[in-house]
Amino acid sequence: MFEVAEVGRSISRTVYKNLEPDLHFRLLSLQQKLRDSSRSLIIIVSGVEGAGKGAVVDRLNYWFDSRDVRTHAFWDETDEERERPRFWRFWRSLPARGTVSVMFTSWYSQPITDRVFGKIDDSEFESQLEQVEDLEHTLIQDGTIIVKFWYHLSKTEQASRLEADAPISQFKQSPFVGQYARLYDHFTTVSEMAIRQSDSGISPWHIIEATDHYYRNLTTAQILVNVLEENLESSATSPVEAPRAPPRIAGQLGQKAQRTVLDTLDLSRALSRMDYESQLAAAQKRLHTLAWQMYHQHRNAVLVFEGWDAAGKGSAIRRLTAAVDARLYRVIPVGKPTDEELAHHYLWRFWRHVPRSGFLTIYDRSWYGRVLVERVEGLADRDAWLRSYREINSFEEHLLDHGTAVLKFWIHVSQEEQQRRFKAREKDPRKQHKLTAEDWRNREKWHHYKLAVNDMVAHTSTAQAPWLLVAGNDKKYARVTIINSVCDRLAQLLQTDTEDSS
Amino acid sequence: MFEVAEVGRSISRTVYKNLEPDLHFRLLSLQQKLRDSSRSLIIIVSGVEGAGKGAVVDRLNYWFDSRDVRTHAFWDETDEERERPRFWRFWRSLPARGTVSVMFTSWYSQPITDRVFGKIDDSEFESQLEQVEDLEHTLIQDGTIIVKFWYHLSKTEQASRLEADAPISQFKQSPFVGQYARLYDHFTTVSEMAIRQSDSGISPWHIIEATDHYYRNLTTAQILVNVLEENLESSATSPVEAPRAPPRIAGQLGQKAQRTVLDTLDLSRALSRMDYESQLAAAQKRLHTLAWQMYHQHRNAVLVFEGWDAAGKGSAIRRLTAAVDARLYRVIPVGKPTDEELAHHYLWRFWRHVPRSGFLTIYDRSWYGRVLVERVEGLADRDAWLRSYREINSFEEHLLDHGTAVLKFWIHVSQEEQQRRFKAREKDPRKQHKLTAEDWRNREKWHHYKLAVNDMVAHTSTAQAPWLLVAGNDKKYARVTIINSVCDRLAQLLQTDTEDSS
Repeated sequence: MFEVAEVGRSISRTVYKNLEPDLHFRLLSLQQKLRDSSRSLIIIVSGVEGAGKGAVVDRLNYWFDSRDVRTHAFWDETDEERERPRFWRFWRSLPARGTVSVMFTSWYSQPITDRVFGKIDDSEFESQLEQVEDLEHTLIQDGTIIVKFWYHLSKTEQASRLEADAPISQFKQSPFVGQYARLYDHFTTVSEMAIRQSDSGISPWHIIEATDHYYRNLTTAQILVNVLEENLESSATSPVEAPRAPPRIAGQLGQKAQRTVLDTLDLSRALSRMDYESQLAAAQKRLHTLAWQMYHQHRNAVLVFEGWDAAGKGSAIRRLTAAVDARLYRVIPVGKPTDEELAHHYLWRFWRHVPRSGFLTIYDRSWYGRVLVERVEGLADRDAWLRSYREINSFEEHLLDHGTAVLKFWIHVSQEEQQRRFKAREKDPRKQHKLTAEDWRNREKWHHYKLAVNDMVAHTSTAQAPWLLVAGNDKKYARVTIINSVCDRLAQLLQTDTEDSS
Repeated sequence: MFEVAEVGRSISRTVYKNLEPDLHFRLLSLQQKLRDSSRSLIIIVSGVEGAGKGAVVDRLNYWFDSRDVRTHAFWDETDEERERPRFWRFWRSLPARGTVSVMFTSWYSQPITDRVFGKIDDSEFESQLEQVEDLEHTLIQDGTIIVKFWYHLSKTEQASRLEADAPISQFKQSPFVGQYARLYDHFTTVSEMAIRQSDSGISPWHIIEATDHYYRNLTTAQILVNVLEENLESSATSPVEAPRAPPRIAGQLGQKAQRTVLDTLDLSRALSRMDYESQLAAAQKRLHTLAWQMYHQHRNAVLVFEGWDAAGKGSAIRRLTAAVDARLYRVIPVGKPTDEELAHHYLWRFWRHVPRSGFLTIYDRSWYGRVLVERVEGLADRDAWLRSYREINSFEEHLLDHGTAVLKFWIHVSQEEQQRRFKAREKDPRKQHKLTAEDWRNREKWHHYKLAVNDMVAHTSTAQAPWLLVAGNDKKYARVTIINSVCDRLAQLLQTDTEDSS
């Protein structure tokens, strides 16, 4: 999830200075519309220590007419608050219609902190988040607009920042800083759980890379403008754009502001023919053994393959299945749905093929079609694909709860490499059938697909079922990487089993 | 919750024979509409053993064209099913668009049974119900219509029925019958939790009194007609009618089919002047002591008073507060909301006054206004008051979780008694101000209010925060009953505390 906020997004000071005044003006005029409406606005500012949440709150108070903005921080409970139900203090702080509440720390803070420091267990954590969700739902149905920001820094960035800042701005740091830095990994895992559970279509999270403060501030302003326009003006957002999509003024922002998680891949990774052959043979041998072990231990796995046209999904799958006894796996090519499938919920066709214990199911394209091709081509309407992130997460949780391993691969190639492969296909009579006019058309939407992949990773890559992004310009490298990843995950799963039973 | 299904509703055989053919015809034509639409229908048939669920399923198969109806029973999992995630078998059984699935036992059965027999604990139970809710939500957003029936019998009715039926229809009984009967109380408590958690505006439960099989069947058919019309035809339901409201053809059904939970009260209950004075004094003395104990043990309580105009709420509250030290309680008269209150969610004004530990808050009218006067007078739209049942339950759960006692009184008087009191007020110059033209107008909606009270009790009376319905024709009896109920509940609460700490 947080990998989408570690891609090195930034914008220059000049661009910021050029664009900020216009956004400022738009926020002010949207605030006027808010006043005239019966709606209210809650902005939740959260994220890791050191990401500059305080600076964002200052900005918000500067951008908006501050007479109608109140900032709330929920620190330790007061006596008054302790003697009442836990949510009393949130109800006290709700904005009246026409006004704005900025929540610097919010109803998410206590559950996350309590879970990190072990004061509550997973089920208590979940039940508290459910109450939060209930509250947000109640408010949204009453007309409140809730915008939730999560500011993220990578582990190394946070460490270097906290160190560098120490002498200068020590007085602005909370006393917990040291503690949080030590607990970075634990904190991000718990936060990921919180975000995933509360990331619904009607109240999505916006995860913002906070390394560059110009990018951080401008994106915050732009998202606020988008969300407010969408709620206060009629139909302002394009149907293929997610509320979480990068700013719509992206064109003016420069290359670095438009980076997606795919840009973090090193596409020059490659293997020599000799290395490939020896490594492939070793990996396949290992997989062969592991697949039988899975069978004997009644464990199953679901492997998902997605990627650009001609990225090499098919050939990677063939190298993988070559290593597995034919009785132990099934490949499900996902194409156009059948009539019967169309007559059900779009997930129904995937539930059908869930493997029995001991077996592997390989999906060549998958349920992610809904948030990729169906989104970009407009085959599913915006509400439908937006809510499907949650439906997909829920589906995969059912698999995980059952003990099924879930691995998801996106094979990435550059636009140039794809073109080279298309041209090669045109010339090769054995491969001509694989190339259609549609493939060429899809290339025109390359940028839209990149955004869709980025959003998909943001919403559905979890600690338990991560997206593995594979550099695919060199097919040899991609194939070996994929088989090794599968082996590692299966070995890990079987390992846990053995530990459990010993 | 189940008290609304123990009021003795029944209809005669003649009435049934008259009305059933028309409902049958309407169901068939609505099924045709379903076929032509892209919608599907799931009917969940559940309830206590002995309530005739099997007979209902037979009826459904008779009423509908059975070619497009499939009945599913989820008994023990098969091997095939056990080796896949728990919900796989439900996804297998989903109806295709245009068709109907009748679920005789459903996704609710296993969680309830497992909880009753102690196989899972409360938090696991809740998390399973959440998955169920998630699934229903997913299906509804995809166009599925879900109708959930719960057939209820009182404990004595169930016992006598199982005994009487034993020799005749033994072959149709499940082998669990004996077990369930012994666990009646436990089973109903767990079922109540399940129903409350899954009783949302978009997917409400219909609780049907199953003692009389004509009433049971006809009500089932009528609710199905209502829900299908509402979903397949435009705007078929009146704005003050709940999906769970008694059949709209009620007029033809006879008195007994229209009984509400208020009709179970014995309004002839009364106290002589002498009994009243001695009992009142004793009750007040007890309450005085208990209120101080609450203060010392830092416990608080919320008392809610609702009832007909002139039912005697005010005077009952005065007798109650007379016994409590003035520093320990507050009475909040709930009238028209202020401007500031109108600018927030309707529950905001009640959160404001939540008592600190050690204190009592008495609400003279309350948050239930939304499902009573606002519903009947059309001040809140149907979606708003329907979803408020859930919001209210959630609000009260926050109070309960905090250790606050929640007591809710409805003071009931007969229509004749109310008229007598109105006339007396007209004549008494000290009381004339209490009577307005609106009071007379409200009388005309007596029947609507009765339905609203019945629905309110069905949705919001829980084991932890029950509605106490008080026979109020004799004010003396009502006052003593109320104070004694408060004393009993507070004593129980303080008792638990002592047990916990010992």
